[in-house]
Amino acid sequence: MKAAIIGGGVIGGGWAARFLLNGWDVAVYDTDPQADRKILDVLENARRALPAIYNKSLPAEGELRFNDEIAEVIVGADWIQESVPERLELKHVVHAEIAKHASADAVIGSSTSGFKPSELNRNETRFIVAHPFNPVYLLPLVELVGDPMQTETAAQILRDIGMYPLTVRNEIDAHIADRLLEAVWREALWLVSDGVATTSEIDEAIRMGFGLRWAQMGLFETYRIAGGEAGMRHFMQQFGPALSWPWTKLMDVPEFTPELVNLIAEQSDAQSGHLSIRELERLRDDNLVGMLRALRITGSGAGKIITDHEVRFEDPSSDELPVTAHRQIPVSWTDYNGHMNEAHFLEASAEATDRFLEMIGAGPEYVSTGKSYFTVENHVRYLAELHAGETLKIATQVLAGDGRKLHLFHNLNGVDGNLAATVETLLLHVDLNTRKSCSPDTEITKSIGQFASAHAKRAVPEGAGRFVGQRG
Amino acid sequence: MKAAIIGGGVIGGGWAARFLLNGWDVAVYDTDPQADRKILDVLENARRALPAIYNKSLPAEGELRFNDEIAEVIVGADWIQESVPERLELKHVVHAEIAKHASADAVIGSSTSGFKPSELNRNETRFIVAHPFNPVYLLPLVELVGDPMQTETAAQILRDIGMYPLTVRNEIDAHIADRLLEAVWREALWLVSDGVATTSEIDEAIRMGFGLRWAQMGLFETYRIAGGEAGMRHFMQQFGPALSWPWTKLMDVPEFTPELVNLIAEQSDAQSGHLSIRELERLRDDNLVGMLRALRITGSGAGKIITDHEVRFEDPSSDELPVTAHRQIPVSWTDYNGHMNEAHFLEASAEATDRFLEMIGAGPEYVSTGKSYFTVENHVRYLAELHAGETLKIATQVLAGDGRKLHLFHNLNGVDGNLAATVETLLLHVDLNTRKSCSPDTEITKSIGQFASAHAKRAVPEGAGRFVGQRG
Repeated sequence: MKAAIIGGGVIGGGWAARFLLNGWDVAVYDTDPQADRKILDVLENARRALPAIYNKSLPAEGELRFNDEIAEVIVGADWIQESVPERLELKHVVHAEIAKHASADAVIGSSTSGFKPSELNRNETRFIVAHPFNPVYLLPLVELVGDPMQTETAAQILRDIGMYPLTVRNEIDAHIADRLLEAVWREALWLVSDGVATTSEIDEAIRMGFGLRWAQMGLFETYRIAGGEAGMRHFMQQFGPALSWPWTKLMDVPEFTPELVNLIAEQSDAQSGHLSIRELERLRDDNLVGMLRALRITGSGAGKIITDHEVRFEDPSSDELPVTAHRQIPVSWTDYNGHMNEAHFLEASAEATDRFLEMIGAGPEYVSTGKSYFTVENHVRYLAELHAGETLKIATQVLAGDGRKLHLFHNLNGVDGNLAATVETLLLHVDLNTRKSCSPDTEITKSIGQFASAHAKRAVPEGAGRFVGQRG
Repeated sequence: MKAAIIGGGVIGGGWAARFLLNGWDVAVYDTDPQADRKILDVLENARRALPAIYNKSLPAEGELRFNDEIAEVIVGADWIQESVPERLELKHVVHAEIAKHASADAVIGSSTSGFKPSELNRNETRFIVAHPFNPVYLLPLVELVGDPMQTETAAQILRDIGMYPLTVRNEIDAHIADRLLEAVWREALWLVSDGVATTSEIDEAIRMGFGLRWAQMGLFETYRIAGGEAGMRHFMQQFGPALSWPWTKLMDVPEFTPELVNLIAEQSDAQSGHLSIRELERLRDDNLVGMLRALRITGSGAGKIITDHEVRFEDPSSDELPVTAHRQIPVSWTDYNGHMNEAHFLEASAEATDRFLEMIGAGPEYVSTGKSYFTVENHVRYLAELHAGETLKIATQVLAGDGRKLHLFHNLNGVDGNLAATVETLLLHVDLNTRKSCSPDTEITKSIGQFASAHAKRAVPEGAGRFVGQRG
């Protein structure tokens, strides 16, 4: 699959990175002489962050190229994304050029945050709004507006690259999210302009409070809870009247004087100026990765998008030991020594154990029947350091698998296949009701037996059966 | 210390839980005959969630009592918090009663989201706004407005109970956060009322996109990044003009007809009605705990509030082995088997190792001099299950500590001191520049030696020196 990115910058670069890391080839057109460098900067951030939200490796990265001709960039593209500045006449010129060269079944999306499809299109319905959110490589939301057949095709492709398409049924200025953002932006500008609060105080008012709520539930579900046991209707009755109080100044637009621009720029410098934009981006990405990984656990919001997407990734084949993990190392797994923390070696191998249990038919469905494996011992040997962004591949050998016991040996390989750690693990099959050991189902015993007899031909791995501190 | 809670409900209950879990005694006054049960429900949620964001145990919980007399509840209270419904005349009546009985140096806060101190006070300055955010036991933000001396005292106390006081310098209707919330709420109601989007679509537009940004950075810092390398000034120049576009309908208030209330209540039922409010609360809390723990790692926003607060918790003393961890088990540490996941046993013991390294002077400051300990082996024996909410206490024995090696044995004890797991760990002292082993500083060798010689008098623990699967 091929994507054409018309207009680089932060948004175009984010789209390019999202497609590339999902295995698409990407061609970029941008008149900015610095476009190459800017897009490669975004891509570098994305390579560090996006793989870290998954427990499997992303597909092999696609090929990136730059070209000075729109026609060249567009040829053969399945998705064409326009992210030029927000000037309608400019978009019309670019769209005319795109229309000349685009293949008949290509999706053509505009990243516009304000224009409606009826404004983008003149005598056609080809152009749809596909409005993403920065950083495009991490945030799943894309607002789709326009012709239903086009947006339907677009939605399918966006799901394929791990995004969340929100189809806006009625076109409206600024779609949905930016109307809400615009409201907050106006009010915030007044607060600064009137000297009520600084940019930093406003940011704290958001991130120490309702921002944490909105990241996982949004506005209405949060208020549903605020209504307590009496629910949404009660909440509306209780807080509805406040609506008619004259709290907001929102329809009055603060004049955009140089003084206001200066005031905000200076407050922003005081707040965040100690970090470069690159450092801020990485801090933001580390936070997003950590929060997204937290949301995976409950399957809420963006967490569910990730786990749904991950199922589609292929497990790499192995002609020898089964590969039970193949993933990149998130920054959140590293510690003050600048390398992957000891506990996360075990987190990765525990996931590998789960994957192996799935392979032998003892996955979640089996657990729901009231039987499972509990780990009774682990021995971890740390042989080499691993770092954020590196690939970790785990191959698992069955040492013994008779009766209630399952004895596994995980080989954790880093870059170039070097052995970075081994984890020897002993599991016991249990009845989840009595919490006592019992025999596994015969299907499972049979499946383990197949692995065990194949692996019995291999040598017992170096490091198996050793105690901590054993010499030689 | 004692807190008086006037008015229970979700907010009053949240305040009560926040104070209780930080070791304060709490007395509650509420005329609702169901107040006891409602507050105990909130407390149950809080007991499950708040301890889970810390790596040390909270202080022993304070004592909770209910009383039918305001005077009884207030006597001796250091903090009096009023959370009665948002009717100014009611607040005046309650405040008059509070003023009669409050001790001279008590802080008196009102949870009001809309009223200003000049409205709350009549001829005095005692009453300040202390406006928290639901769930009060997890979200750090409290907006303080009013007399500078009172808010200063209040801010100090709030920090002591792990909250983030934001002092609003100029009183204004709805303070800061609720002005922003009100703006979004109005716009969202229009979107629903006009049939542009449902409550569920609006929530997705928030939590799949900008909600994730705001939980960690807020509005202005996010836009600073959006400006790219050119920064905040560039962002304002690029997006400023859109301000004058007529996107928002915010000053027009949608009429609060029964039809609109029904429409929203029905959409909310369709969106979230499959979960009870209790289930939604727990889902929210699990998400918040996971996200807050993710923010701890980077020290961003609410994450830093937690780690700053945690330093104040005392380590429990032990007349025998040093206690290197004493904490409750977060829900996010459990897995599909309904118990604490194997990897998190090692996460807890890795934190215990760090704590022990601090005890011997090899903490973060030592690491910043370019030397550190790397773990080379771990052996974990799982002896009993642990569950969310239970307390975990780790006592650490030095098996050997001569030269470059440090050999530790962690005893992980659950409820009633039962041994739940042991972790035998071998560390090697390294030079962080060469990544090769080297001798520790003499101060550290000396400190290890003291522990080692004391511990040498003890028996070698059962389970040390064993290999995986060893019998007998």
